[in-house]
Amino acid sequence: MSQGKPTPLSGFPEWLPAGQIVQRQVIDTLSRVFELHGFAPLSTRAVEPLDQLLRKGETSKEVYVLRRLQADADDASDSGLGLHFDLTVPFARYVLENAGKLQFPFRRYQIQPCWRGERPQEGRYREFWQADIDVVDRDTLSPHYEVELPLVIADALGALPLPKATMHVNNRKLSQGFYTGLGLSDPMAAIRIVDKIDKIGPGGVGATLADELGASDAQIKACLAMAEIRTTDGSFADRLAALGVADPLLDEGIEELTRVVEAAAEHAPGLVVADLRIARGLDYYTGTVYETFLDGAEALGSICSGGRYDNLATAGTESYPGVGLSIGISRILGRLLGRHELTATRTVPTCVLVALPDDASRPACDRIAAGLRRRGIATEVAPAAQKYGKQIRFAQRRGIPYVLFPDADGAVEIRDIRSGEQAPAVLESWQPPAADLHARIGTE
Amino acid sequence: MSQGKPTPLSGFPEWLPAGQIVQRQVIDTLSRVFELHGFAPLSTRAVEPLDQLLRKGETSKEVYVLRRLQADADDASDSGLGLHFDLTVPFARYVLENAGKLQFPFRRYQIQPCWRGERPQEGRYREFWQADIDVVDRDTLSPHYEVELPLVIADALGALPLPKATMHVNNRKLSQGFYTGLGLSDPMAAIRIVDKIDKIGPGGVGATLADELGASDAQIKACLAMAEIRTTDGSFADRLAALGVADPLLDEGIEELTRVVEAAAEHAPGLVVADLRIARGLDYYTGTVYETFLDGAEALGSICSGGRYDNLATAGTESYPGVGLSIGISRILGRLLGRHELTATRTVPTCVLVALPDDASRPACDRIAAGLRRRGIATEVAPAAQKYGKQIRFAQRRGIPYVLFPDADGAVEIRDIRSGEQAPAVLESWQPPAADLHARIGTE
Repeated sequence: MSQGKPTPLSGFPEWLPAGQIVQRQVIDTLSRVFELHGFAPLSTRAVEPLDQLLRKGETSKEVYVLRRLQADADDASDSGLGLHFDLTVPFARYVLENAGKLQFPFRRYQIQPCWRGERPQEGRYREFWQADIDVVDRDTLSPHYEVELPLVIADALGALPLPKATMHVNNRKLSQGFYTGLGLSDPMAAIRIVDKIDKIGPGGVGATLADELGASDAQIKACLAMAEIRTTDGSFADRLAALGVADPLLDEGIEELTRVVEAAAEHAPGLVVADLRIARGLDYYTGTVYETFLDGAEALGSICSGGRYDNLATAGTESYPGVGLSIGISRILGRLLGRHELTATRTVPTCVLVALPDDASRPACDRIAAGLRRRGIATEVAPAAQKYGKQIRFAQRRGIPYVLFPDADGAVEIRDIRSGEQAPAVLESWQPPAADLHARIGTE
Repeated sequence: MSQGKPTPLSGFPEWLPAGQIVQRQVIDTLSRVFELHGFAPLSTRAVEPLDQLLRKGETSKEVYVLRRLQADADDASDSGLGLHFDLTVPFARYVLENAGKLQFPFRRYQIQPCWRGERPQEGRYREFWQADIDVVDRDTLSPHYEVELPLVIADALGALPLPKATMHVNNRKLSQGFYTGLGLSDPMAAIRIVDKIDKIGPGGVGATLADELGASDAQIKACLAMAEIRTTDGSFADRLAALGVADPLLDEGIEELTRVVEAAAEHAPGLVVADLRIARGLDYYTGTVYETFLDGAEALGSICSGGRYDNLATAGTESYPGVGLSIGISRILGRLLGRHELTATRTVPTCVLVALPDDASRPACDRIAAGLRRRGIATEVAPAAQKYGKQIRFAQRRGIPYVLFPDADGAVEIRDIRSGEQAPAVLESWQPPAADLHARIGTE
């Protein structure tokens, strides 16, 4: 099977061994934090029926459709399938499909790749890993979950060696109530228009509000003033009150957003800001909405987004409102690995290399390795009975911190390859420092 | 987005929450064992160029091909892609693509879904998870890895709550050398014919050997006698010698197989048998071959297969021989979960439910939960301030073992929902028994 050297596929990132270890530890850390908060693991199939995927409309052109290379004309059982482009659609489908067998409220986390046929660029891939948490309930969902989920994300991001992040939070009820109270004809259209402020500027927003909704100068001025409000505590409410708009839905939104911001300020100071310009593109959000940016890398886009949705999963008269947040693992790692801002202390899990004095010693060395593994120490035996200098370099090239040299009489010496120090050790009780037991990830 | 209740897709299994926890723990356990043996984590993209996927020939009709729903005519960058049908092809491609940046011998494990458009049946799915380990080296690969890999699998299977398994091992050099020494015209064809013995019986094999290779009665008798040899130790060599066939490649194969069987008998007594009928369908194996069956579920097919390959990854003059084994996670779980022979002690990761006396107490209860989580105890707060009886039932329905009741004065009581015993506890030091800390998997 001789062939030329394969070349990478644009948009389908794959990491080298150190990056693979980073990704695995990031996924493990997120899983551990989510489970500490009682989220159950969920893995769904990669494919969904096309009609499920196209329900949202906006993403139709990005969906990858499947067909079997030599599909039988008489077997349509797997036609009309596409790869999921997020983890929300498969989750909503899983909830509906299994509703009778699930306990509500249902908390799950889900860490899987997604696929979109987008033009690849920094932060946008055709295959990318997402880590989602959601809580769904049957019929009604208490707003306290909108307070809780950003605190879970705070713990998750805080457990990773990432640059500081800021989560911008707003509330759809607040926006919709504000535009209604202001007398705009189509509050949902106003949300979409003001959402474009970063792209078209305040002038563009004002012109569009006038053109499309017939907004007056005073209404435009109020909209732009609201979009400027950004506070790290509940004081956004005072600044909003100064604009003199009254509406019951607005009050509800203010109260909900205040609870989110104040709980976050206690639990994770500095993470959350109330930012009344945030809208999220997707129509299905109905309460709190979240977007998160790495400080200094705002142009990368949001690394963790989501919100509350009341109508994503409904079947007949049953509805399953939920709230969820999604961390863009590939977006974060593509940036930090690509710029060498994150790496692993070694390219293998191995903590100890057992040196091989000669070929006849392999069974004895295998027994030494098995003993270390039984005590949780990742160990491999050297591939060949080369000169010890070569065996040490084998460890060095991979970052394996310790080389164990067996003596004929059953004694061993252990060498720290970083310091070069070598000393006799008691095999049955020797333990590496906790920091050396596993590869660690961190900034370079 | 109202819709009817979705129905499952045949061949794309998804587990309910308890099964999800089982699958996650199986994957975690396998990862941990593989890392203890120094295998580095690898995750490759789901797609490969079709020419890579079709290289093997045999599986072409099963490949899922991708297209973008609204692909631009001028953008062919993701045409000609298909989903991988195993983890060996992507691994070989990754090695070739990154050969200059990898350290050899390169040991990796890889746990991901694969896709094949096969007709679904027990043990065969259209989406299925595999857990692979492989060692590849540059130019030459020492045969001791063929001895080592089944011992890693022994540790991996031994760490899972599975029925007893038996690994059947043979060696392609032994088979090929035997047929050559026997004077058969096409030893590779003989391997393929004898491999069908379970399907077409000894009579069918004899007839085919006569028809296709012009084998004499004596040659057929020797082939069938060899196929009957199955021993748990090195005595297969004596039984083979009694057939009076001599060939240098046969001797090499006998020596290699003897080492595999003897090392396994020491490390994992009862796991491995030398079974000279095993051939593996795939042409690319060149040394040891492995197939593993769950005792009492042989009809399910092999749950862990592989072998040595010398020519899977070659680019120009470079070649990367390897040896690998692949565990069929979905095949195992489909069987054991489907028959309720494996389950989890609870359907959520949560160990403690903090009961909520009233809505005003939520921030205090959140602080109690945060304190438990800091000590590694998975905790959630009750969703609503219902009567305590209802909150206890919330825990019972999910299998959450402990409910914590906060008192107004900061004291707490903890109830074991299984025994119903409830007692005051010191919040800062209370620890559940280790067996209750995480959901456990086991037989029902």
